[in-house]
Amino acid sequence: MLEGSRKNHAVEVSKSSHTAATKALIKQLGATVVRTEHATCYASSFDSGRMFFLPEAVIKPRKHADIGVVLGLANRRGVPVTPRGRGTTLMGSATPKEGGWVLDLLKLNRIKVDDEAGFAHVQAGAVVAKIQDAAEELGWFYPPDPSSRAFCTIGGNIACNAGGMHGGKYGVTRDFIVALKGYLPTGEYVEWGTATRKFAAGFNLRDLWIGSEGMLGVVTEAVLRLIPKPASRWTLLTSFEDEVSAFKAARVLFGAKIQPAICEFLDRHSVQCAEGAMGTTIFPGQPGRPIILLELAGSASEVKESRKAVLDWAKEHALGHRAARNRGEAESLWAVRRKCSGAMFQMGDAKLNEDITVPLAAYGTFARFLDRLRKTSGLAIPTFGHLADGNLHVNIMYHKADPAECVAAEKAVLALMAKVVALGGAISGEHGIGLAKTPFLRLQHSEAEIGAMQAVKRALDPKGILNPGKMFEVFETWKCAKVEATFPWDHK
Amino acid sequence: MLEGSRKNHAVEVSKSSHTAATKALIKQLGATVVRTEHATCYASSFDSGRMFFLPEAVIKPRKHADIGVVLGLANRRGVPVTPRGRGTTLMGSATPKEGGWVLDLLKLNRIKVDDEAGFAHVQAGAVVAKIQDAAEELGWFYPPDPSSRAFCTIGGNIACNAGGMHGGKYGVTRDFIVALKGYLPTGEYVEWGTATRKFAAGFNLRDLWIGSEGMLGVVTEAVLRLIPKPASRWTLLTSFEDEVSAFKAARVLFGAKIQPAICEFLDRHSVQCAEGAMGTTIFPGQPGRPIILLELAGSASEVKESRKAVLDWAKEHALGHRAARNRGEAESLWAVRRKCSGAMFQMGDAKLNEDITVPLAAYGTFARFLDRLRKTSGLAIPTFGHLADGNLHVNIMYHKADPAECVAAEKAVLALMAKVVALGGAISGEHGIGLAKTPFLRLQHSEAEIGAMQAVKRALDPKGILNPGKMFEVFETWKCAKVEATFPWDHK
Repeated sequence: MLEGSRKNHAVEVSKSSHTAATKALIKQLGATVVRTEHATCYASSFDSGRMFFLPEAVIKPRKHADIGVVLGLANRRGVPVTPRGRGTTLMGSATPKEGGWVLDLLKLNRIKVDDEAGFAHVQAGAVVAKIQDAAEELGWFYPPDPSSRAFCTIGGNIACNAGGMHGGKYGVTRDFIVALKGYLPTGEYVEWGTATRKFAAGFNLRDLWIGSEGMLGVVTEAVLRLIPKPASRWTLLTSFEDEVSAFKAARVLFGAKIQPAICEFLDRHSVQCAEGAMGTTIFPGQPGRPIILLELAGSASEVKESRKAVLDWAKEHALGHRAARNRGEAESLWAVRRKCSGAMFQMGDAKLNEDITVPLAAYGTFARFLDRLRKTSGLAIPTFGHLADGNLHVNIMYHKADPAECVAAEKAVLALMAKVVALGGAISGEHGIGLAKTPFLRLQHSEAEIGAMQAVKRALDPKGILNPGKMFEVFETWKCAKVEATFPWDHK
Repeated sequence: MLEGSRKNHAVEVSKSSHTAATKALIKQLGATVVRTEHATCYASSFDSGRMFFLPEAVIKPRKHADIGVVLGLANRRGVPVTPRGRGTTLMGSATPKEGGWVLDLLKLNRIKVDDEAGFAHVQAGAVVAKIQDAAEELGWFYPPDPSSRAFCTIGGNIACNAGGMHGGKYGVTRDFIVALKGYLPTGEYVEWGTATRKFAAGFNLRDLWIGSEGMLGVVTEAVLRLIPKPASRWTLLTSFEDEVSAFKAARVLFGAKIQPAICEFLDRHSVQCAEGAMGTTIFPGQPGRPIILLELAGSASEVKESRKAVLDWAKEHALGHRAARNRGEAESLWAVRRKCSGAMFQMGDAKLNEDITVPLAAYGTFARFLDRLRKTSGLAIPTFGHLADGNLHVNIMYHKADPAECVAAEKAVLALMAKVVALGGAISGEHGIGLAKTPFLRLQHSEAEIGAMQAVKRALDPKGILNPGKMFEVFETWKCAKVEATFPWDHK
């Protein structure tokens, strides 16, 4: 399967022609916008995926129109351009694989909330948590919440169609995008959609851009739909005998048409990590049991109504349950969820964090598969995730200095992806493909599907300058040396 | 502006080569699937837009794979293929403009509701109201509700990204599509997405297909997301002094973050039509006043909470208000809304029904523009629509035998579209472009935007066989003779 690689019309121009193009760009935009010093180039040479490719320049546009200039020139001269926000992606989507220019959008970060229409008008570099704060200040709510939300930008969230814990009830980034503005790879300015909830004029390139990982266009501005901020929240922690029982119980809950705003699952291995890190047992007398952490959200009366149904469900299906009596207690329940991710590094110094999806009906089968995979690989594979949308984070832990473990991890991830697709699920629910998932794309998609995607790429980016080398070319991340770096958004 | 037409790589092959291709297709699929008799061809030669183009054959596939055969052959032989559901579209999107074959998907109409996951698995020819019924039987709800929902198919709804009255709170067809299966114009089978709410693997061609009016692929199956059926509904009719006051009041309501499930507006002209047709005055002593018809939906407690807020709003902002005491009374309030559309034909025997959108903040400006347009055109222009998503139906009424009125109607529709775009709105909110809206596409989109759409079209349909002649080529519907036909879904 790893043979399946096809070379994607990547730009092949001599290094020197980039240098000339860079000089031309500096002449147009100035040396404070076009940065070529090593420190800046190095800082943009990798993202949270830690794969390393040095760009020739980092462009930090201070206005909209600069981007048209950059892309116009890049298109004429054949210079690879990699758009970048904060670089929190784990997939390598923001690393300049083919060199050239990094287009750093962090300076374009305006946020304006239209209180009447319930829209946020934001620039690509705006930080997601800041958008959420601005919305909440006016009584609105923007649900998509990747775990790096305090750092990551809306442009990056749009690029990978980011999800998060609220996906099951509310949806993902795509579900909140009303309109986009930006530039085609040729440098032409375009707008997809208007600041109205309905729009049916022409092909929908808005949603083609969303999730295209910066390969089909550069988003400069977005109109986001907001929803009224839920007045009330209620948190419940539940424990289960084993993973199969937890999944079965979740299916009963969803089948009863109860839609928690958040429904997080931690398997017993994740719980053990969290308990180890916290030095306490989540449910006294029940160490290392899988848990489901639920949050209801809505009006006070709505939450009250569902709360009763959820408590009845917990009494019938859970081993233990504990409701938070106030926001402070709720926070301490959430601490469990936050601890587990970082604490996994007890089990290995390297992690393949796979954000797969599995249909609800296949949950039990999948739990049994994971148990077998742990045995056959000999690796720890703690798993947690978002139960209401089938999006589970399967973490294959290994020691990178141990060649046998590296081989086992590679085999395990391939087996995982094949199984997920066989069960009718997806190789990625919210991270995207970038470089890291490229070995699995052909498990998910047929040649006809990939052919259509590549045809669209060629149609919009005939010179192949925008984020080349991603998605379609197979890149084996586990064979690639990684930069040693720590990020503020790392799970500690 | 009408000069802006560009010829879109339409198929230009001799009539005889279609005949040979049709014979070859009959040989493969049989004469019961491939119909060439005049009556069948005539019935598929127009849709509700009543523009008339005779196909050479109508293909009624009885299984999935037939469609791949049809498209494969059409692609090799250069035969135009126009996919078709019930043909309720008003835009001419389903009429075979370039002749060739009509691909009639009505026989593929299976519906299966996954009660646990809250998904409906449906084939393209399934009728929308039947999907809604199947969902509601199990306590689920599928919100998109075009007025032809008792007749139109989900395939057609996907093709034009249909909306309806529930758009403001719940969204449109696109917002409920989880995955699509179908065929590329080349006849290759593809699947976009899985039956999971999150999917981030590869470019999103699912949403590119949605709203592409059958020009980029043929949908055979869809997975739809359902929501729990609201347990409770409450209906309120409100009247206002004039349109500007009604719009102002609506903005206050939305600004208070109250989200009615339905919020229908009728201007005084629409109300006069409805009152004339019913022979009564909606609010005694207040004939011909604009109205807003609201419906709240949700759990009993949720509706109760919002009801109080809405009543307070009505007391402060409306001239009159009347709540339905039960479903029967609610139905009689809804009758007002249903009457207005058909009753407009008192004012002219021809109607340009334009489903434009306007941003909330521009409502007042737009109301004053419509008043001026009525004066300058001398035509009746009753307007009603979906207030919560900015989607208003502006109905330009004229007498088709009166040349002066025809000219006035053409001028009025052009002025309307220019105004809508200038206000930051859209030339279509839920009908799509088809043939009827082609003269306005270049008001909405720049050459760069249209160039990108056409590049995508060429990429996926290199021979230009799928629904050619639509969207990009300017077609002046008002200069085209119409078929005299009545449909069961006509507004009486």
